[in-house]
Amino acid sequence: MFVTETHIRVRYAETDQMNVVYYGNYAQYFEVARAESIRNLGFTYKEMEELGVIMPVVEMQTKFLRPAHYDDLLNIKTFLKELPADHRIVFEHEVYNQQKKLLTLGKVILYFVKIGSYEKTQMPEALRSVLQTFFP
Amino acid sequence: MFVTETHIRVRYAETDQMNVVYYGNYAQYFEVARAESIRNLGFTYKEMEELGVIMPVVEMQTKFLRPAHYDDLLNIKTFLKELPADHRIVFEHEVYNQQKKLLTLGKVILYFVKIGSYEKTQMPEALRSVLQTFFP
Amino acid sequence: MFVTETHIRVRYAETDQMNVVYYGNYAQYFEVARAESIRNLGFTYKEMEELGVIMPVVEMQTKFLRPAHYDDLLNIKTFLKELPADHRIVFEHEVYNQQKKLLTLGKVILYFVKIGSYEKTQMPEALRSVLQTFFP
Amino acid sequence: MFVTETHIRVRYAETDQMNVVYYGNYAQYFEVARAESIRNLGFTYKEMEELGVIMPVVEMQTKFLRPAHYDDLLNIKTFLKELPADHRIVFEHEVYNQQKKLLTLGKVILYFVKIGSYEKTQMPEALRSVLQTFFP
Repeated sequence: MFVTETHIRVRYAETDQMNVVYYGNYAQYFEVARAESIRNLGFTYKEMEELGVIMPVVEMQTKFLRPAHYDDLLNIKTFLKELPADHRIVFEHEVYNQQKKLLTLGKVILYFVKIGSYEKTQMPEALRSVLQTFFP
Repeated sequence: MFVTETHIRVRYAETDQMNVVYYGNYAQYFEVARAESIRNLGFTYKEMEELGVIMPVVEMQTKFLRPAHYDDLLNIKTFLKELPADHRIVFEHEVYNQQKKLLTLGKVILYFVKIGSYEKTQMPEALRSVLQTFFP
Repeated sequence: MFVTETHIRVRYAETDQMNVVYYGNYAQYFEVARAESIRNLGFTYKEMEELGVIMPVVEMQTKFLRPAHYDDLLNIKTFLKELPADHRIVFEHEVYNQQKKLLTLGKVILYFVKIGSYEKTQMPEALRSVLQTFFP
Repeated sequence: MFVTETHIRVRYAETDQMNVVYYGNYAQYFEVARAESIRNLGFTYKEMEELGVIMPVVEMQTKFLRPAHYDDLLNIKTFLKELPADHRIVFEHEVYNQQKKLLTLGKVILYFVKIGSYEKTQMPEALRSVLQTFFP
């Protein structure tokens, strides 16, 4: 399993008049956490796009247990529980606040596809080689 | 069953560099569709908040089948398949583009809670009375 | 002068915990109003991009006089006071709420540039021909 | 003069189909930079709201010189050039990318007002006392 932690400070823009983070903004937090997860492997999502591979999201599931508030310093734990065997990759997320309360659960499924044609493809070798050391 | 249709024009701000609507923006589309669904019943979500009842989202599931593009005039079909029996309400959504292609499936679960205390409550009577005519 | 009016309903996502529309969201409202202004001329911004011309914003000025609130049905008046003589176009905006109170003033300056090269260019002839009838 | 630097990584969500950061998102960057600027003084904007003082934006001016791109690590320089004498405070911003190119200029004017009544007020003493050491 490959696990990373990413910290995100809640912006005022991300709150709504219920005084909490708007439910739609967690998708951005998950995106940032995925990108930082990949960066921790010495690779970047940006480099993947430059190699001609993009990762559209095909499915997302979120459970909102407790609200996040303005200026909270969130800790997003990101789990890659299985090494992708084909064009599909699954990230799971747990969002905690600074009191270590679990706020949100997320699961995001993405495909590796070729830029332009949207043809399904595999995870780039440069990423797989570093990632598989976590799946002995 | 209670079904409504809401049309939303895709904004430039809602696209990303993949030339499609960013996956996180569908939560906003579902929010607008829910609000218009309630408005069609002669009630508004704003009035509900003024009555002291807010509706936080507790769960969301989304499947992204095909991308939406800038300036697309989306049709969001919103389904309320069951009359809420307690504090829980489930909206289902189908997003179509102007070529009537199904782009996205969404399911959003919300609670009725009292403003301030966040105590679970029931759907306001003013809304229930008009809604139950759709569930004979 | 060319003037149009565009109506936008405030989304919950666009509010913040000050119970008003977040100041950063007016840029989106101005974008929608510009796009609808061009659509009223029988042309679309999308078609302009397909012709190889994009319109990056180079300057924006905004004055926030009164707040907009959730569910307000805003009326955005968009003014094109001069026919562009070169690569530069200036849109001015006034945002009113349903009580006809003036909430916000905006001025957005954009360039016509060629997609890819970012070379300055002129307004496409298809747009100029319909627009100049408003500047006799 | 009081100057701070804040680093922000560009999110995918913040790009648009022009492959650059959408012009409306700079308002969020300025907000984060203001908040971090105040935090550097040992105070937080959140604490100010808890003291009953909020800071609505009344005016914003932005010049977009060069585009920011996905994954850029922006450096937002924030300048407070004058100690506020009344209810008005002016922040100026310069946004640089990692190549130290100046991308954007911003000026944001805010008021100190009492929460609830929106009555104009002064900068809280707790903030003024630390800030005035920068204006000898």
